[in-house]
Amino acid sequence: MVKGSNVMTTNGVTAARTRVFVSELVARVRPVSDHWRREGALRLDRLTKPPGSLGGLEEIALRCCAIQETLDLTTSPRRILVCAGDHGVVAEGVSAYPKAVTAQMVANITSGGAAINALAAAAGADVWIVDVGVDGPTAVDGGHARLVSRRVRNGTRNMLEEAAMSEVEMLDALQVGLDLSAQAAADGVRLVGLGEMGIGNTTAASAVTAGVTGRPPARVTGRGTGVDDGTLARKVAVVERAVAAHGCVPGAPLDVLRTVGGLEIAALCGVCLGAAAHRLAIVTDGFVATSAALIAAALAPSLVGYLFAGHLSPEPGHAVQLEHLGLRPLLNLNMRLGEGTGAALAMPVIGAAALAFTSMATFDSAGVSGQA
Amino acid sequence: MVKGSNVMTTNGVTAARTRVFVSELVARVRPVSDHWRREGALRLDRLTKPPGSLGGLEEIALRCCAIQETLDLTTSPRRILVCAGDHGVVAEGVSAYPKAVTAQMVANITSGGAAINALAAAAGADVWIVDVGVDGPTAVDGGHARLVSRRVRNGTRNMLEEAAMSEVEMLDALQVGLDLSAQAAADGVRLVGLGEMGIGNTTAASAVTAGVTGRPPARVTGRGTGVDDGTLARKVAVVERAVAAHGCVPGAPLDVLRTVGGLEIAALCGVCLGAAAHRLAIVTDGFVATSAALIAAALAPSLVGYLFAGHLSPEPGHAVQLEHLGLRPLLNLNMRLGEGTGAALAMPVIGAAALAFTSMATFDSAGVSGQA
Repeated sequence: MVKGSNVMTTNGVTAARTRVFVSELVARVRPVSDHWRREGALRLDRLTKPPGSLGGLEEIALRCCAIQETLDLTTSPRRILVCAGDHGVVAEGVSAYPKAVTAQMVANITSGGAAINALAAAAGADVWIVDVGVDGPTAVDGGHARLVSRRVRNGTRNMLEEAAMSEVEMLDALQVGLDLSAQAAADGVRLVGLGEMGIGNTTAASAVTAGVTGRPPARVTGRGTGVDDGTLARKVAVVERAVAAHGCVPGAPLDVLRTVGGLEIAALCGVCLGAAAHRLAIVTDGFVATSAALIAAALAPSLVGYLFAGHLSPEPGHAVQLEHLGLRPLLNLNMRLGEGTGAALAMPVIGAAALAFTSMATFDSAGVSGQA
Repeated sequence: MVKGSNVMTTNGVTAARTRVFVSELVARVRPVSDHWRREGALRLDRLTKPPGSLGGLEEIALRCCAIQETLDLTTSPRRILVCAGDHGVVAEGVSAYPKAVTAQMVANITSGGAAINALAAAAGADVWIVDVGVDGPTAVDGGHARLVSRRVRNGTRNMLEEAAMSEVEMLDALQVGLDLSAQAAADGVRLVGLGEMGIGNTTAASAVTAGVTGRPPARVTGRGTGVDDGTLARKVAVVERAVAAHGCVPGAPLDVLRTVGGLEIAALCGVCLGAAAHRLAIVTDGFVATSAALIAAALAPSLVGYLFAGHLSPEPGHAVQLEHLGLRPLLNLNMRLGEGTGAALAMPVIGAAALAFTSMATFDSAGVSGQA
């Protein structure tokens, strides 16, 4: 369904070739434009409002100018890319839900019954649900979301026993994300939202976050979908052991991704790299989606200019991620569902900011007096 | 354009008759429904998501159930009621903009060039701009917002010299708001947003807030549209003198409104009382609009159940108001423009919450497993 991009195939690559592959990706991510940001600021100050009075909306508009390299901002079409994968580490008892729920929720999303369907509809966004690594049947297209079957493996390996992915599997999953971004760009999409579904994936996200930021696992591991105290303690211990066993350190983001990450996290990392290369604005979601952005930004620091933090999750590691990225969340509604729900909810805010920027009158044109 | 409601006429009323008029209004505000809130909670727990994981969106949905007395929530049509008025206290040099800007901005709104036009359009809301007390010509309908001419007076009197309004003027302005709410209900509107325009009205809002909450004027007086240090000091002194001179105290909200309020604030207070009586959800905006809600809630405490705090403004008194009302803002984007912009931006969040509530599948219907 998604056509391959012109990026080299990843089958049989070695670690050395991985570095080449990724460095080529990174080179395609150019910084956002300071020139267009300045042009945007000049326009903002002529609009009929006290200077700065639209607050965060002004910053959003300026970021859009810098990303899109124009003052004629557009924020539609919008698309939520929900990447789904299972996690071998679920065998350690780190989740409140059985693994089967991943496939069940993929089906629920294709049938239009999940929260992301509602919030994306409210945001005027379409939903693509991408099987990158579900461990169960997902070949059901309910017609309410585009189901993309690009399964790399039936879930990751258990990170406590071995690396979650092989090098090839990781690159294949990254490639899925690159292809999704290329398709989004080809479809004219202007806002890409990151979504995920995967029982156990907050454990992987915690390990990724500890690895990339160097913060202690206990600081960035939380209750996910709602585990009890005993499970939380077990989850923290699992993350500590995995991060230590694989020698995860901030300077080696790809090794972190491969050893303790997830297939859906790798795919979303590819989405970020690809979307930024296509100069598309990226809206992050919660803790898991942002762990993918964290890896992508560690590889390509200028990618941060393309990121909007959709919301702040109560998952304790999420604030750590956003601080690390230097991003301020647009919403803070105590949401901790994932699926891209926070990204979807934030899209209308970005759209409103862009519409104010493009459609407001200037003091001159409206005959309104400025400050005395 | 707006038809009179069946509420008694206010011409020639005395203070005693005012009490009767207002007590009748207050009696029409029934508490929101605990029964429907409980019914909503039962439904929420069956939806395909971890319990509580939609955070603030779940609280929004429950509030909508309690307001609308149904599980079939609807949040459209949506309307922003921008009430405009001038302020005699501008003669004291409390604003960064000349008084003429009020009428100019009314014209800008009717022409579609103001921020509220853009943000309301993004929210799917129509805009009514209501001249309750502008001191200048506003009879220009640009076709982009409904212009309602219900001027009570050419601006308030200077609160440092006398009461801002007479009893009759205040009641006439309240009546404008009641009529606007009645019309909104007749038009099927489901979300009413509070907007305002009026040079100098943050001074009035500060005085109202100090009066209703009993907090010191210096604590609830800020820079408004962006006054400098000297003007801020003058503004604080004006508020202190006005509150003291008129003996504003928390127990007498109508006296506070009449002596230091504004015509647009009185109208918005009427909007709140009327909308709650019609069981319409009310979305507050920033500091000035919330000062109207503060008066309304002081008169009818159960009205708080109908209020959604659209956003948090950096104006220091706004957090004081929201704390006093016990409301948590939906957005916090450092916006300080007024016009109803924060209310408009929050409406899609409320709409998304309601859509998730009404359209999500249940665990049973979707065949998704619950917590282990």
